[in-house]
Amino acid sequence: MRWVPGGVTAPKGFVAAGVAAGIKRSRKPDLALVAADRPAAAAAVFTTNRVQAAPVLISRARARRGRAQAVLINSGCANCLTGPAGMRDALRVSRAAAEALRIKESHVLVASTGLIGTRLPVAKIERALPKLARQLSRRRHEAAAQAILTTDLHPKEAAVEARINGRFVRVGGMAKGSGMIAPSMATMLCVLTTDAAAPARWLGGLLREAAEETFNRISVDHDMSTNDTVFALAGGGSGAAIRPGTAGARRFARMVTAVAGRLAERLVRDGEGATKRMTVEVCGGRTAREAQACARQAAGSPLVKTMLAGSDANVGRLAAAAGASGARFDPARLEIHVEGVRLVAGGAALPVPAAALRRLLRRPHVRVRIHLHAGRASARMLTCDLTEEYVRINAGYAT
Amino acid sequence: MRWVPGGVTAPKGFVAAGVAAGIKRSRKPDLALVAADRPAAAAAVFTTNRVQAAPVLISRARARRGRAQAVLINSGCANCLTGPAGMRDALRVSRAAAEALRIKESHVLVASTGLIGTRLPVAKIERALPKLARQLSRRRHEAAAQAILTTDLHPKEAAVEARINGRFVRVGGMAKGSGMIAPSMATMLCVLTTDAAAPARWLGGLLREAAEETFNRISVDHDMSTNDTVFALAGGGSGAAIRPGTAGARRFARMVTAVAGRLAERLVRDGEGATKRMTVEVCGGRTAREAQACARQAAGSPLVKTMLAGSDANVGRLAAAAGASGARFDPARLEIHVEGVRLVAGGAALPVPAAALRRLLRRPHVRVRIHLHAGRASARMLTCDLTEEYVRINAGYAT
Repeated sequence: MRWVPGGVTAPKGFVAAGVAAGIKRSRKPDLALVAADRPAAAAAVFTTNRVQAAPVLISRARARRGRAQAVLINSGCANCLTGPAGMRDALRVSRAAAEALRIKESHVLVASTGLIGTRLPVAKIERALPKLARQLSRRRHEAAAQAILTTDLHPKEAAVEARINGRFVRVGGMAKGSGMIAPSMATMLCVLTTDAAAPARWLGGLLREAAEETFNRISVDHDMSTNDTVFALAGGGSGAAIRPGTAGARRFARMVTAVAGRLAERLVRDGEGATKRMTVEVCGGRTAREAQACARQAAGSPLVKTMLAGSDANVGRLAAAAGASGARFDPARLEIHVEGVRLVAGGAALPVPAAALRRLLRRPHVRVRIHLHAGRASARMLTCDLTEEYVRINAGYAT
Repeated sequence: MRWVPGGVTAPKGFVAAGVAAGIKRSRKPDLALVAADRPAAAAAVFTTNRVQAAPVLISRARARRGRAQAVLINSGCANCLTGPAGMRDALRVSRAAAEALRIKESHVLVASTGLIGTRLPVAKIERALPKLARQLSRRRHEAAAQAILTTDLHPKEAAVEARINGRFVRVGGMAKGSGMIAPSMATMLCVLTTDAAAPARWLGGLLREAAEETFNRISVDHDMSTNDTVFALAGGGSGAAIRPGTAGARRFARMVTAVAGRLAERLVRDGEGATKRMTVEVCGGRTAREAQACARQAAGSPLVKTMLAGSDANVGRLAAAAGASGARFDPARLEIHVEGVRLVAGGAALPVPAAALRRLLRRPHVRVRIHLHAGRASARMLTCDLTEEYVRINAGYAT
């Protein structure tokens, strides 16, 4: 398996484009289209929030049928809390996309991201769609990746290639998201494409597993969005058909997880206001669920995240987060390492020079290991620091 | 019932003092003592964090016996993650307090707050104790309330008086805490005193109920401390004995809850970096637990709290928090009011002028009501805004 350029259009048979349709007041790109040259097997994972945006409701019903040929995504408006009118709006733009592409409307998946509670500017999107469709090309993957961004600073793309059944197969993807990213959910928006052929139902299972190992292992803040969506489209353009249960299927699954993992990492790297990252690894948990709860509590703690921002070695906050997580362990056996240096052993903080600690915490990616000494389960989370910039961004988002 | 001045020494039979023992590098007051003129009925509520500070372990065992005569509290050092040495340290300072006061060591309750992972400077505390004991007086309640503060800006005291069984009974209290304050726990440090006589076991039940309704209904950040403690001492100096199950007992319970409630409100008002408060009221929940979960999710959401900081009306964040809380409701019936103005009805955001919204959110105490329309249960939480100052405080706490 090797990394290749190209994002969502790295796999054969996919084209993409992104334009400024005028949804964002900033006039930045805000409408992206990804299309396949034929109906593809489709699967999706959505937010578990009880309040769900109109496009989530529509795409959920369509993805369930297992076929799709295009994904239309707008930024600048979440089309959520918009009631029946929001449903009509989402259906109108999906119809316009189907007409521009001359494909079945039920094969159009839609997603929206941006401010909650405002109506989708349907007329602007309808006006932009013919041009967007004309621009579709294998080269325009980055324009699409740009157009789905909100407060993100950088587009997020990844693609890999590997040989399966004698054919070169590719998996590509793009994602957006930098705030409102929490564990226990899908993620923000992500489109994965592949030129392998795969049964839609199997692809869905694989997608859920990949999301669980990647997007569900990151945390920027503790919030959960109403619009999170991960789509996967398998077009089959490579000529390779994945048969579940084979070595090729396992390799393909690793490719999907690799692309999702790299995109997840980039989501954290581009977290709102983030200046650095932290990997929290918990080992010695009694159960996988407890190890995971502990890693999540530490990775989500505002006090741990501000400590990281300030390179301020306050190992007690890691211990307090572990203790608050619900994981069962003997505090007298707790052990904590930061960047390989043991700071807590036998439940007591060790004397480590503050200057040395500060140097460790100044690293751009800080690795923390919490050993609970209560069992054999382990878990890992990736998070970023909580900075004044995060507050600045989110204190003035709507205006 | 009327509010009276005096904090922990408002009830007859209690004295207090606070001094700078040199635990804090700032030379600010950091050692507080509250003492009763006789052994009092005692009860306590502690953090549910699995990692617990040495003084928590000691005070839990002592409070269980139901008698205490003094509370020694230091700030500047949490005496947590300090292993067996930390236990010895806590025992040494409690012994020194007992000697200075000439009371039984088992009647001394101890609590610590401050940086986790550093050893208690026992010699400094031992040196300060004789002076602290000499200063004990009914007038020095505020010095004690000052000495228990960490990042708090203001001391927090409250006291009430009411007539029970023909006698004037008082309940007083002091508290500290401004960060690491989360629901699902006791609180930070709090000492409640009363000159009523009450059975210790009954007092404990009443204290847990009062904490549940007050300290467990506030949120500054999502973290849980290793040192949280609420003590209650009933000395009996008023001559009134509370008999469980009587009208007097109910009046007494209301007094305890009133004092705890006012202290809880002051904790939020003095939240780290806080500039304003928000009450989140959830009604129409299917169950009390779900209404509570919804209120907690909204009150704890960084996006809701930054919205409050920026007076940035982004009602979608309240809806997203409600939807993420696990409470069951039909999103199409969701209703949200801010300061009495309906912003969401029938699951859709209503058109309200942004300038008007901003004016509502600029108020120092913003009231939000989320109506789930799913049942009859309700819940309430009090929280503060999340500001850049919170990050500044916590990014450099240890150094």
